[in-house]
Amino acid sequence: MTSALQPVTVLGLGNMGFALATALLDRGHPVTVWNRSPHKAVPLTDRGASLAATPADAIAASPLVIPCVVDYDTLYALLDGATGSLPGRAVVNLTSGSPEQAHQALAWFRSHGADYLDGAIMTTPPGVGSSEVMFLYSGPREVFDAHRTTLAALGDPLYLDADPGLASLYDAALLGLMWATMTGWLHGTALVGAEKVAATTFTPVAIRWLSTVNSFLTRYAGQVDTGRYPGDDATVDVQIAAIDHLIHATAARGLDTALPTLLKSTMERAKAAGHGSDSFASVIKVLAETESK
Amino acid sequence: MTSALQPVTVLGLGNMGFALATALLDRGHPVTVWNRSPHKAVPLTDRGASLAATPADAIAASPLVIPCVVDYDTLYALLDGATGSLPGRAVVNLTSGSPEQAHQALAWFRSHGADYLDGAIMTTPPGVGSSEVMFLYSGPREVFDAHRTTLAALGDPLYLDADPGLASLYDAALLGLMWATMTGWLHGTALVGAEKVAATTFTPVAIRWLSTVNSFLTRYAGQVDTGRYPGDDATVDVQIAAIDHLIHATAARGLDTALPTLLKSTMERAKAAGHGSDSFASVIKVLAETESK
Repeated sequence: MTSALQPVTVLGLGNMGFALATALLDRGHPVTVWNRSPHKAVPLTDRGASLAATPADAIAASPLVIPCVVDYDTLYALLDGATGSLPGRAVVNLTSGSPEQAHQALAWFRSHGADYLDGAIMTTPPGVGSSEVMFLYSGPREVFDAHRTTLAALGDPLYLDADPGLASLYDAALLGLMWATMTGWLHGTALVGAEKVAATTFTPVAIRWLSTVNSFLTRYAGQVDTGRYPGDDATVDVQIAAIDHLIHATAARGLDTALPTLLKSTMERAKAAGHGSDSFASVIKVLAETESK
Repeated sequence: MTSALQPVTVLGLGNMGFALATALLDRGHPVTVWNRSPHKAVPLTDRGASLAATPADAIAASPLVIPCVVDYDTLYALLDGATGSLPGRAVVNLTSGSPEQAHQALAWFRSHGADYLDGAIMTTPPGVGSSEVMFLYSGPREVFDAHRTTLAALGDPLYLDADPGLASLYDAALLGLMWATMTGWLHGTALVGAEKVAATTFTPVAIRWLSTVNSFLTRYAGQVDTGRYPGDDATVDVQIAAIDHLIHATAARGLDTALPTLLKSTMERAKAAGHGSDSFASVIKVLAETESK
Protein backbone atom coordinates (compact mmCIF):
# COMPACT_ATOMS: atom_id res chain seq x y z
CA MET A 1 0.00 0.00 0.00
CA THR A 2 1.37 3.40 -0.96
CA SER A 3 0.59 6.80 0.49
CA ALA A 4 0.86 10.25 -1.02
CA LEU A 5 1.67 11.64 2.41
CA GLN A 6 5.21 12.30 3.61
CA PRO A 7 6.84 9.64 5.78
CA VAL A 8 7.73 10.97 9.24
CA THR A 9 9.96 9.62 11.99
CA VAL A 10 9.26 10.34 15.65
CA LEU A 11 12.14 9.86 18.09
CA GLY A 12 11.00 9.33 21.65
CA LEU A 13 7.68 7.91 22.81
CA GLY A 14 7.03 9.64 26.08
CA ASN A 15 3.45 10.85 26.49
CA MET A 16 4.09 13.71 24.09
CA GLY A 17 6.05 11.76 21.46
CA PHE A 18 3.39 9.07 21.55
CA ALA A 19 0.69 11.72 20.96
CA LEU A 20 2.67 13.16 18.03
CA ALA A 21 3.04 9.75 16.37
CA THR A 22 -0.65 9.06 16.94
CA ALA A 23 -1.69 12.34 15.30
CA LEU A 24 0.50 11.60 12.27
CA LEU A 25 -0.99 8.11 11.96
CA ASP A 26 -4.47 9.63 12.25
CA ARG A 27 -3.74 11.74 9.18
CA GLY A 28 -2.46 8.75 7.26
CA HIS A 29 1.26 9.49 7.28
CA PRO A 30 3.68 6.57 7.12
CA VAL A 31 5.25 6.78 10.58
CA THR A 32 8.50 5.29 11.86
CA VAL A 33 9.19 5.42 15.58
CA TRP A 34 12.08 4.72 17.88
CA ASN A 35 12.05 4.57 21.63
CA ARG A 36 14.53 3.44 24.22
CA SER A 37 11.89 1.08 25.58
CA PRO A 38 10.45 -0.51 22.42
CA HIS A 39 7.31 -1.86 24.14
CA LYS A 40 5.91 1.68 24.24
CA ALA A 41 5.59 1.45 20.44
CA VAL A 42 3.21 -1.52 20.41
CA PRO A 43 -0.07 0.46 20.16
CA LEU A 44 1.51 2.40 17.28
CA THR A 45 2.87 -0.59 15.37
CA ASP A 46 -0.56 -2.20 15.81
CA ARG A 47 -1.86 0.75 13.79
CA GLY A 48 0.77 0.38 11.08
CA ALA A 49 3.75 2.34 12.38
CA SER A 50 7.24 0.91 11.82
CA LEU A 51 9.45 0.39 14.84
CA ALA A 52 13.11 1.07 14.04
CA ALA A 53 15.77 -0.92 15.85
CA THR A 54 18.11 2.06 16.21
CA PRO A 55 17.93 5.86 16.00
CA ALA A 56 20.08 5.62 12.84
CA ASP A 57 17.52 3.33 11.20
CA ALA A 58 14.68 5.58 12.32
CA ILE A 59 16.32 8.67 10.85
CA ALA A 60 17.12 6.86 7.62
CA ALA A 61 13.46 5.88 7.21
CA SER A 62 11.93 9.35 6.67
CA PRO A 63 12.90 12.70 5.17
CA LEU A 64 11.27 14.46 8.16
CA VAL A 65 12.47 13.56 11.65
CA ILE A 66 10.75 14.84 14.82
CA PRO A 67 12.68 14.29 18.06
CA CYS A 68 10.65 14.73 21.24
CA VAL A 69 12.67 13.58 24.22
CA VAL A 70 13.03 14.72 27.80
CA ASP A 71 15.98 17.10 27.30
CA TYR A 72 18.90 17.99 25.02
CA ASP A 73 21.38 15.72 26.78
CA THR A 74 19.10 12.80 25.99
CA LEU A 75 18.74 14.01 22.41
CA TYR A 76 22.49 14.20 21.73
CA ALA A 77 23.05 10.86 23.46
CA LEU A 78 20.57 9.05 21.21
CA LEU A 79 22.06 10.70 18.11
CA ASP A 80 25.53 9.42 19.00
CA GLY A 81 26.22 6.84 16.32
CA ALA A 82 23.28 8.01 14.18
CA THR A 83 24.85 11.05 12.57
CA GLY A 84 25.56 9.12 9.37
CA SER A 85 21.81 9.11 8.66
CA LEU A 86 21.38 12.86 9.07
CA PRO A 87 22.54 14.30 5.71
CA GLY A 88 19.53 15.46 3.69
CA ARG A 89 17.11 15.07 6.58
CA ALA A 90 14.91 17.85 7.99
CA VAL A 91 14.87 17.75 11.77
CA VAL A 92 11.98 19.50 13.50
CA ASN A 93 12.96 19.39 17.14
CA LEU A 94 10.11 19.40 19.65
CA THR A 95 12.33 18.70 22.65
CA SER A 96 11.88 21.39 25.32
CA GLY A 97 14.91 23.53 26.03
CA SER A 98 16.35 27.00 26.15
CA PRO A 99 16.84 29.45 23.27
CA GLU A 100 20.58 28.87 23.62
CA GLN A 101 20.11 25.11 23.22
CA ALA A 102 18.06 25.73 20.06
CA HIS A 103 20.85 27.88 18.61
CA GLN A 104 23.42 25.19 19.38
CA ALA A 105 21.19 22.48 17.91
CA LEU A 106 20.74 24.37 14.64
CA ALA A 107 24.52 24.62 14.29
CA TRP A 108 25.04 20.99 15.28
CA PHE A 109 22.46 19.54 12.87
CA ARG A 110 23.70 21.75 10.05
CA SER A 111 27.22 20.52 10.68
CA HIS A 112 25.85 17.02 10.11
CA GLY A 113 24.12 17.96 6.88
CA ALA A 114 20.55 18.23 8.20
CA ASP A 115 18.09 21.08 8.01
CA TYR A 116 16.78 22.24 11.39
CA LEU A 117 13.67 23.86 12.77
CA ASP A 118 12.94 24.34 16.45
CA GLY A 119 9.44 23.98 17.81
CA ALA A 120 7.37 24.32 20.96
CA ILE A 121 4.13 22.44 21.66
CA MET A 122 1.56 24.69 23.31
CA THR A 123 -0.67 21.99 24.71
CA THR A 124 -0.63 18.87 26.85
CA PRO A 125 -0.57 15.47 25.07
CA PRO A 126 -4.39 15.12 24.93
CA GLY A 127 -4.55 18.33 22.86
CA VAL A 128 -2.14 17.15 20.15
CA GLY A 129 -3.81 16.75 16.74
CA SER A 130 -6.33 19.55 17.23
CA SER A 131 -6.17 22.53 14.87
CA GLU A 132 -7.19 24.63 17.89
CA VAL A 133 -3.80 24.27 19.55
CA MET A 134 -0.64 26.12 18.57
CA PHE A 135 2.69 24.64 17.63
CA LEU A 136 5.31 27.39 17.47
CA TYR A 137 8.29 27.14 15.11
CA SER A 138 11.43 29.18 14.60
CA GLY A 139 14.44 28.76 12.38
CA PRO A 140 14.88 28.83 8.59
CA ARG A 141 11.63 29.85 6.93
CA GLU A 142 12.17 27.48 3.99
CA VAL A 143 12.31 24.44 6.31
CA PHE A 144 9.00 25.50 7.82
CA ASP A 145 7.40 26.12 4.44
CA ALA A 146 8.57 22.74 3.11
CA HIS A 147 6.95 20.86 6.00
CA ARG A 148 4.06 23.10 7.03
CA THR A 149 1.39 20.78 5.64
CA THR A 150 2.78 17.77 7.50
CA LEU A 151 3.23 19.75 10.73
CA ALA A 152 -0.44 20.77 10.53
CA ALA A 153 -1.28 17.17 11.49
CA LEU A 154 0.03 17.97 15.00
CA GLY A 155 -1.73 21.29 15.58
CA ASP A 156 -1.93 24.73 14.02
CA PRO A 157 1.66 25.56 12.95
CA LEU A 158 2.73 29.15 13.66
CA TYR A 159 6.02 30.38 12.24
CA LEU A 160 7.69 32.99 14.47
CA ASP A 161 11.10 34.01 13.21
CA ALA A 162 14.35 32.93 11.58
CA ASP A 163 16.00 33.08 15.03
CA PRO A 164 15.78 29.40 16.10
CA GLY A 165 15.63 30.38 19.79
CA LEU A 166 12.33 32.20 19.58
CA ALA A 167 10.06 29.15 19.80
CA SER A 168 11.70 28.24 23.13
CA LEU A 169 11.56 31.82 24.35
CA TYR A 170 7.86 32.13 23.46
CA ASP A 171 7.32 28.77 25.15
CA ALA A 172 8.86 30.04 28.40
CA ALA A 173 6.96 33.33 28.17
CA LEU A 174 3.63 31.62 27.48
CA LEU A 175 4.10 29.00 30.21
CA GLY A 176 4.91 31.84 32.62
CA LEU A 177 1.63 33.48 31.62
CA MET A 178 -0.12 30.14 32.14
CA TRP A 179 1.31 29.60 35.63
CA ALA A 180 0.46 33.16 36.64
CA THR A 181 -3.08 32.81 35.29
CA MET A 182 -3.66 29.35 36.77
CA THR A 183 -2.32 30.40 40.17
CA GLY A 184 -4.43 33.58 40.10
CA TRP A 185 -7.44 31.48 39.16
CA LEU A 186 -6.76 28.95 41.95
CA HIS A 187 -6.38 31.84 44.39
CA GLY A 188 -9.74 33.29 43.33
CA THR A 189 -11.28 29.84 43.44
CA ALA A 190 -10.02 29.40 47.02
CA LEU A 191 -11.36 32.83 47.96
CA VAL A 192 -14.92 32.25 46.75
CA GLY A 193 -14.61 28.62 47.88
CA ALA A 194 -14.26 29.93 51.45
CA GLU A 195 -17.88 31.05 51.02
CA LYS A 196 -18.91 27.64 49.64
CA VAL A 197 -18.92 28.64 45.97
CA ALA A 198 -17.96 25.63 43.82
CA ALA A 199 -14.99 25.90 41.45
CA THR A 200 -17.28 24.83 38.63
CA THR A 201 -19.60 27.73 39.49
CA PHE A 202 -16.83 30.34 39.67
CA THR A 203 -14.80 29.18 36.68
CA PRO A 204 -17.21 30.01 33.83
CA VAL A 205 -17.44 33.55 35.24
CA ALA A 206 -13.63 33.67 35.51
CA ILE A 207 -13.25 32.51 31.90
CA ARG A 208 -15.70 35.10 30.69
CA TRP A 209 -13.83 37.74 32.70
CA LEU A 210 -10.57 36.68 31.03
CA SER A 211 -12.08 37.66 27.67
CA THR A 212 -12.47 41.19 29.10
CA VAL A 213 -8.90 40.98 30.40
CA ASN A 214 -7.82 40.04 26.87
CA SER A 215 -9.19 43.37 25.66
CA PHE A 216 -6.99 45.09 28.25
CA LEU A 217 -3.94 43.15 27.04
CA THR A 218 -4.62 44.20 23.47
CA ARG A 219 -4.91 47.86 24.47
CA TYR A 220 -1.83 47.73 26.70
CA ALA A 221 0.30 45.96 24.07
CA GLY A 222 0.13 49.10 21.96
CA GLN A 223 1.14 51.15 24.99
CA VAL A 224 4.14 48.93 25.70
CA ASP A 225 5.36 49.31 22.12
CA THR A 226 5.03 53.11 22.16
CA GLY A 227 6.41 53.46 25.70
CA ARG A 228 3.49 55.70 26.69
CA TYR A 229 0.96 54.45 29.25
CA PRO A 230 -2.03 56.79 29.47
CA GLY A 231 -4.02 55.91 32.60
CA ASP A 232 -7.37 57.07 31.30
CA ASP A 233 -9.11 53.72 31.92
CA ALA A 234 -7.58 52.76 35.26
CA THR A 235 -4.36 53.93 36.88
CA VAL A 236 -1.74 52.06 38.88
CA ASP A 237 -2.87 54.14 41.90
CA VAL A 238 -6.45 52.87 41.45
CA GLN A 239 -5.23 49.26 41.16
CA ILE A 240 -3.11 49.60 44.31
CA ALA A 241 -6.17 50.82 46.22
CA ALA A 242 -8.28 47.97 44.83
CA ILE A 243 -5.78 45.20 45.60
CA ASP A 244 -6.02 46.04 49.29
CA HIS A 245 -9.62 44.73 49.16
CA LEU A 246 -8.25 41.46 47.78
CA ILE A 247 -5.47 41.14 50.35
CA HIS A 248 -7.89 41.95 53.15
CA ALA A 249 -10.50 39.46 51.90
CA THR A 250 -7.78 36.81 51.51
CA ALA A 251 -6.29 37.31 54.96
CA ALA A 252 -9.76 37.47 56.57
CA ARG A 253 -10.42 33.94 55.29
CA GLY A 254 -7.06 32.56 56.43
CA LEU A 255 -5.83 32.03 52.85
CA ASP A 256 -2.33 32.45 51.45
CA THR A 257 -1.59 36.11 50.67
CA ALA A 258 1.78 35.63 48.93
CA LEU A 259 0.54 36.14 45.36
CA PRO A 260 -1.55 39.30 45.88
CA THR A 261 1.18 40.71 48.13
CA LEU A 262 3.76 40.23 45.38
CA LEU A 263 1.41 41.74 42.78
CA LYS A 264 0.84 44.76 45.01
CA SER A 265 4.55 45.28 45.67
CA THR A 266 5.20 45.10 41.92
CA MET A 267 2.61 47.83 41.36
CA GLU A 268 4.11 49.89 44.18
CA ARG A 269 7.51 49.70 42.52
CA ALA A 270 5.88 51.08 39.35
CA LYS A 271 4.31 53.87 41.40
CA ALA A 272 7.66 54.63 43.04
CA ALA A 273 9.16 54.86 39.55
CA GLY A 274 6.65 57.60 38.73
CA HIS A 275 3.89 55.55 37.11
CA GLY A 276 1.10 56.04 39.67
CA SER A 277 -1.06 57.94 37.17
CA ASP A 278 -0.19 55.62 34.29
CA SER A 279 -1.99 52.48 33.18
CA PHE A 280 -1.08 48.99 34.42
CA ALA A 281 1.00 48.55 31.25
CA SER A 282 3.66 50.76 32.87
CA VAL A 283 4.40 47.91 35.32
CA ILE A 284 6.56 46.43 32.55
CA LYS A 285 9.14 49.11 33.34
CA VAL A 286 9.91 47.49 36.70
CA LEU A 287 9.75 43.92 35.35
CA ALA A 288 12.10 44.76 32.51
CA GLU A 289 14.60 46.84 34.43
CA THR A 290 18.01 45.28 34.73
CA GLU A 291 18.65 43.87 38.17
CA SER A 292 21.41 45.88 39.72
CA LYS A 293 21.39 44.70 43.31
CA MET B 1 -42.10 63.90 26.36
CA THR B 2 -42.86 60.72 28.24
CA SER B 3 -40.90 57.50 28.38
CA ALA B 4 -42.00 53.95 29.11
CA LEU B 5 -38.61 53.27 30.64
CA GLN B 6 -37.95 53.35 34.36
CA PRO B 7 -36.46 56.54 35.78
CA VAL B 8 -33.04 55.94 37.37
CA THR B 9 -30.92 58.04 39.71
CA VAL B 10 -27.12 57.84 39.66
CA LEU B 11 -25.30 59.14 42.74
CA GLY B 12 -21.70 60.07 42.03
CA LEU B 13 -20.22 61.14 38.70
CA GLY B 14 -16.67 59.91 38.83
CA ASN B 15 -15.51 58.27 35.60
CA MET B 16 -17.56 55.17 36.39
CA GLY B 17 -20.73 56.94 37.60
CA PHE B 18 -20.58 59.17 34.54
CA ALA B 19 -20.34 56.10 32.30
CA LEU B 20 -23.33 54.49 34.06
CA ALA B 21 -25.50 57.61 33.59
CA THR B 22 -24.42 57.83 29.95
CA ALA B 23 -25.37 54.19 29.29
CA LEU B 24 -28.80 54.75 30.87
CA LEU B 25 -29.36 57.88 28.77
CA ASP B 26 -28.26 55.93 25.67
CA ARG B 27 -31.08 53.45 26.32
CA GLY B 28 -33.61 56.26 26.77
CA HIS B 29 -34.09 56.10 30.54
CA PRO B 30 -35.06 59.28 32.35
CA VAL B 31 -31.91 59.88 34.43
CA THR B 32 -31.40 62.03 37.51
CA VAL B 33 -27.86 62.60 38.72
CA TRP B 34 -26.21 64.10 41.75
CA ASN B 35 -22.55 64.86 42.21
CA ARG B 36 -20.58 66.78 44.81
CA SER B 37 -19.15 68.93 42.00
CA PRO B 38 -22.22 69.73 39.88
CA HIS B 39 -20.22 70.86 36.82
CA LYS B 40 -19.40 67.20 36.08
CA ALA B 41 -23.10 66.75 35.21
CA VAL B 42 -23.14 69.30 32.36
CA PRO B 43 -22.57 66.83 29.47
CA LEU B 44 -25.37 64.70 30.95
CA THR B 45 -27.88 67.52 31.49
CA ASP B 46 -27.10 68.65 27.93
CA ARG B 47 -28.45 65.24 26.90
CA GLY B 48 -31.58 65.54 29.02
CA ALA B 49 -30.54 64.28 32.45
CA SER B 50 -31.87 66.12 35.50
CA LEU B 51 -29.35 67.44 38.01
CA ALA B 52 -30.64 67.19 41.58
CA ALA B 53 -29.58 69.84 44.08
CA THR B 54 -29.19 67.34 46.94
CA PRO B 55 -28.85 63.57 47.40
CA ALA B 56 -32.31 63.60 49.00
CA ASP B 57 -33.83 65.19 45.88
CA ALA B 58 -31.94 62.74 43.64
CA ILE B 59 -33.21 59.72 45.58
CA ALA B 60 -36.76 61.09 45.59
CA ALA B 61 -36.68 61.44 41.79
CA SER B 62 -36.46 57.72 40.82
CA PRO B 63 -37.63 54.35 42.15
CA LEU B 64 -34.20 52.88 41.29
CA VAL B 65 -31.11 54.52 42.79
CA ILE B 66 -27.54 53.54 41.78
CA PRO B 67 -24.77 54.89 44.03
CA CYS B 68 -21.27 54.68 42.57
CA VAL B 69 -18.87 56.60 44.76
CA VAL B 70 -15.28 56.13 45.82
CA ASP B 71 -15.92 54.17 49.03
CA TYR B 72 -18.48 53.35 51.68
CA ASP B 73 -17.50 56.24 53.98
CA THR B 74 -18.30 58.60 51.14
CA LEU B 75 -21.57 56.78 50.50
CA TYR B 76 -22.83 57.04 54.08
CA ALA B 77 -21.69 60.68 54.30
CA LEU B 78 -23.72 61.70 51.26
CA LEU B 79 -26.78 59.80 52.54
CA ASP B 80 -26.66 61.70 55.83
CA GLY B 81 -29.75 63.89 55.68
CA ALA B 82 -31.20 61.96 52.72
CA THR B 83 -32.60 58.97 54.55
CA GLY B 84 -36.11 60.42 54.47
CA SER B 85 -36.20 59.77 50.72
CA LEU B 86 -35.19 56.11 50.99
CA PRO B 87 -38.46 54.32 51.89
CA GLY B 88 -39.78 52.41 48.89
CA ARG B 89 -36.60 52.92 46.85
CA ALA B 90 -34.49 50.10 45.39
CA VAL B 91 -30.80 50.80 45.87
CA VAL B 92 -28.39 48.94 43.58
CA ASN B 93 -25.02 49.81 45.04
CA LEU B 94 -22.10 49.77 42.62
CA THR B 95 -19.64 51.29 45.09
CA SER B 96 -16.56 49.04 45.49
CA GLY B 97 -16.08 47.53 48.90
CA SER B 98 -15.70 44.37 50.92
CA PRO B 99 -18.25 41.58 51.42
CA GLU B 100 -18.61 42.76 55.02
CA GLN B 101 -19.46 46.29 53.86
CA ALA B 102 -22.10 44.85 51.52
CA HIS B 103 -23.68 42.93 54.40
CA GLN B 104 -23.75 46.06 56.55
CA ALA B 105 -25.18 48.14 53.71
CA LEU B 106 -28.03 45.70 53.14
CA ALA B 107 -28.97 45.95 56.81
CA TRP B 108 -28.59 49.74 56.83
CA PHE B 109 -30.71 50.37 53.72
CA ARG B 110 -33.37 47.94 54.92
CA SER B 111 -33.51 49.77 58.24
CA HIS B 112 -34.33 52.88 56.20
CA GLY B 113 -37.08 51.19 54.23
CA ALA B 114 -35.16 50.61 50.99
CA ASP B 115 -34.53 47.42 49.04
CA TYR B 116 -30.86 46.65 48.44
CA LEU B 117 -28.77 44.84 45.88
CA ASP B 118 -24.98 44.85 45.79
CA GLY B 119 -23.13 44.92 42.49
CA ALA B 120 -19.66 44.80 40.98
CA ILE B 121 -18.71 46.27 37.60
CA MET B 122 -16.36 43.95 35.72
CA THR B 123 -15.00 46.50 33.27
CA THR B 124 -13.38 49.91 33.08
CA PRO B 125 -15.59 52.92 32.29
CA PRO B 126 -15.14 52.67 28.49
CA GLY B 127 -16.69 49.19 28.60
CA VAL B 128 -19.90 50.24 30.36
CA GLY B 129 -23.00 49.83 28.20
CA SER B 130 -21.71 46.79 26.29
CA SER B 131 -23.60 43.53 26.61
CA GLU B 132 -20.18 41.83 26.41
CA VAL B 133 -19.18 42.96 29.90
CA MET B 134 -20.40 41.45 33.15
CA PHE B 135 -22.08 43.24 36.00
CA LEU B 136 -22.29 40.91 39.01
CA TYR B 137 -25.13 41.21 41.52
CA SER B 138 -25.85 39.60 44.88
CA GLY B 139 -28.59 40.09 47.43
CA PRO B 140 -32.34 39.45 47.34
CA ARG B 141 -33.29 37.71 44.11
CA GLU B 142 -36.57 39.63 43.81
CA VAL B 143 -34.76 42.98 43.75
CA PHE B 144 -32.58 41.72 40.93
CA ASP B 145 -35.55 40.31 39.00
CA ALA B 146 -37.50 43.57 39.36
CA HIS B 147 -34.68 45.63 37.86
CA ARG B 148 -32.89 43.21 35.59
CA THR B 149 -34.13 44.84 32.38
CA THR B 150 -32.96 48.27 33.47
CA LEU B 151 -29.62 46.94 34.71
CA ALA B 152 -29.06 45.36 31.28
CA ALA B 153 -28.49 48.92 29.98
CA LEU B 154 -25.16 48.91 31.88
CA GLY B 155 -23.83 45.51 30.83
CA ASP B 156 -24.83 41.86 31.02
CA PRO B 157 -26.36 41.42 34.50
CA LEU B 158 -25.34 38.17 36.28
CA TYR B 159 -27.10 37.24 39.48
CA LEU B 160 -24.83 35.31 41.87
CA ASP B 161 -26.48 34.61 45.19
CA ALA B 162 -28.75 35.87 47.95
CA ASP B 163 -25.65 36.55 50.08
CA PRO B 164 -25.09 40.27 49.37
CA GLY B 165 -21.32 39.92 49.91
CA LEU B 166 -20.72 37.61 46.98
CA ALA B 167 -20.56 40.28 44.28
CA SER B 168 -17.72 41.97 46.20
CA LEU B 169 -15.99 38.67 46.83
CA TYR B 170 -16.19 37.65 43.16
CA ASP B 171 -14.94 41.13 42.29
CA ALA B 172 -11.86 40.67 44.48
CA ALA B 173 -11.28 37.14 43.16
CA LEU B 174 -11.63 38.20 39.53
CA LEU B 175 -9.43 41.27 39.94
CA GLY B 176 -6.81 39.05 41.54
CA LEU B 177 -7.00 36.80 38.49
CA MET B 178 -6.67 39.89 36.29
CA TRP B 179 -3.59 41.22 38.09
CA ALA B 180 -1.95 37.80 38.01
CA THR B 181 -2.72 37.39 34.32
CA MET B 182 -1.68 40.92 33.37
CA THR B 183 1.56 40.67 35.34
CA GLY B 184 2.30 37.26 33.81
CA TRP B 185 1.60 38.72 30.39
CA LEU B 186 3.83 41.75 31.01
CA HIS B 187 6.57 39.40 32.22
CA GLY B 188 6.31 37.32 29.05
CA THR B 189 6.19 40.49 26.97
CA ALA B 190 9.39 41.71 28.65
CA LEU B 191 11.02 38.34 28.06
CA VAL B 192 10.37 38.20 24.31
CA GLY B 193 10.89 41.97 24.18
CA ALA B 194 14.50 41.35 25.23
CA GLU B 195 14.85 39.66 21.82
CA LYS B 196 13.19 42.61 20.06
CA VAL B 197 9.76 41.01 19.69
CA ALA B 198 7.07 43.72 19.81
CA ALA B 199 4.30 43.47 22.43
CA THR B 200 1.77 43.72 19.61
CA THR B 201 3.42 40.69 17.95
CA PHE B 202 3.50 38.57 21.12
CA THR B 203 0.07 39.48 22.47
CA PRO B 204 -2.18 37.84 19.84
CA VAL B 205 -0.25 34.60 20.44
CA ALA B 206 -0.62 35.08 24.20
CA ILE B 207 -4.37 35.65 23.87
CA ARG B 208 -4.75 32.56 21.74
CA TRP B 209 -2.72 30.60 24.30
CA LEU B 210 -5.06 31.81 27.05
CA SER B 211 -7.92 30.08 25.25
CA THR B 212 -5.97 26.82 25.67
CA VAL B 213 -5.33 27.75 29.31
CA ASN B 214 -9.10 28.23 29.70
CA SER B 215 -9.57 24.58 28.76
CA PHE B 216 -7.15 23.65 31.57
CA LEU B 217 -9.13 25.80 34.04
CA THR B 218 -12.36 24.07 33.03
CA ARG B 219 -10.81 20.62 33.52
CA TYR B 220 -9.16 21.58 36.82
CA ALA B 221 -12.34 23.18 38.22
CA GLY B 222 -13.93 19.74 38.29
CA GLN B 223 -10.85 18.37 40.04
CA VAL B 224 -10.99 21.10 42.70
CA ASP B 225 -14.62 20.31 43.44
CA THR B 226 -13.99 16.58 43.77
CA GLY B 227 -10.71 17.01 45.66
CA ARG B 228 -8.94 14.58 43.33
CA TYR B 229 -6.19 15.85 41.03
CA PRO B 230 -5.13 13.19 38.53
CA GLY B 231 -1.88 14.28 36.90
CA ASP B 232 -2.39 12.47 33.64
CA ASP B 233 -1.99 15.58 31.47
CA ALA B 234 0.88 17.29 33.29
CA THR B 235 2.08 16.88 36.86
CA VAL B 236 3.32 19.42 39.37
CA ASP B 237 6.75 17.75 39.05
CA VAL B 238 6.74 18.39 35.28
CA GLN B 239 5.72 22.02 35.81
CA ILE B 240 8.49 22.54 38.39
CA ALA B 241 11.05 21.24 35.89
CA ALA B 242 9.65 23.48 33.15
CA ILE B 243 9.57 26.66 35.23
CA ASP B 244 13.33 26.44 35.67
CA HIS B 245 13.63 27.18 31.93
CA LEU B 246 11.58 30.33 32.52
CA ILE B 247 13.58 31.47 35.55
CA HIS B 248 16.82 30.83 33.71
CA ALA B 249 15.70 32.66 30.57
CA THR B 250 14.46 35.56 32.72
CA ALA B 251 17.65 35.87 34.74
CA ALA B 252 19.82 35.50 31.62
CA ARG B 253 18.17 38.63 30.23
CA GLY B 254 18.51 40.65 33.43
CA LEU B 255 14.76 40.73 34.02
CA ASP B 256 12.87 40.57 37.29
CA THR B 257 12.50 36.98 38.52
CA ALA B 258 10.17 37.64 41.48
CA LEU B 259 6.97 36.37 39.85
CA PRO B 260 8.28 33.07 38.41
CA THR B 261 10.23 32.46 41.62
CA LEU B 262 7.03 32.83 43.67
CA LEU B 263 5.12 30.60 41.25
CA LYS B 264 7.82 27.95 41.53
CA SER B 265 7.91 28.08 45.34
CA THR B 266 4.11 27.71 45.40
CA MET B 267 4.41 24.58 43.25
CA GLU B 268 7.20 23.28 45.47
CA ARG B 269 4.96 23.67 48.52
CA ALA B 270 2.36 21.56 46.71
CA LYS B 271 5.02 18.97 45.94
CA ALA B 272 6.18 18.98 49.57
CA ALA B 273 2.55 18.38 50.57
CA GLY B 274 2.58 15.21 48.47
CA HIS B 275 1.14 16.53 45.20
CA GLY B 276 4.19 16.07 42.92
CA SER B 277 2.38 13.50 40.79
CA ASP B 278 -0.91 15.39 40.84
CA SER B 279 -2.13 18.02 38.39
CA PHE B 280 -1.60 21.74 38.87
CA ALA B 281 -5.09 21.95 40.37
CA SER B 282 -3.63 20.45 43.57
CA VAL B 283 -1.78 23.75 44.17
CA ILE B 284 -5.07 25.05 45.62
CA LYS B 285 -4.35 22.94 48.69
CA VAL B 286 -1.43 25.18 49.67
CA LEU B 287 -3.23 28.42 48.71
CA ALA B 288 -6.27 27.45 50.72
CA GLU B 289 -4.54 26.06 53.77
CA THR B 290 -5.08 28.13 56.87
CA GLU B 291 -2.01 30.15 57.76
CA SER B 292 -0.74 28.81 61.03
CA LYS B 293 2.67 30.42 61.31
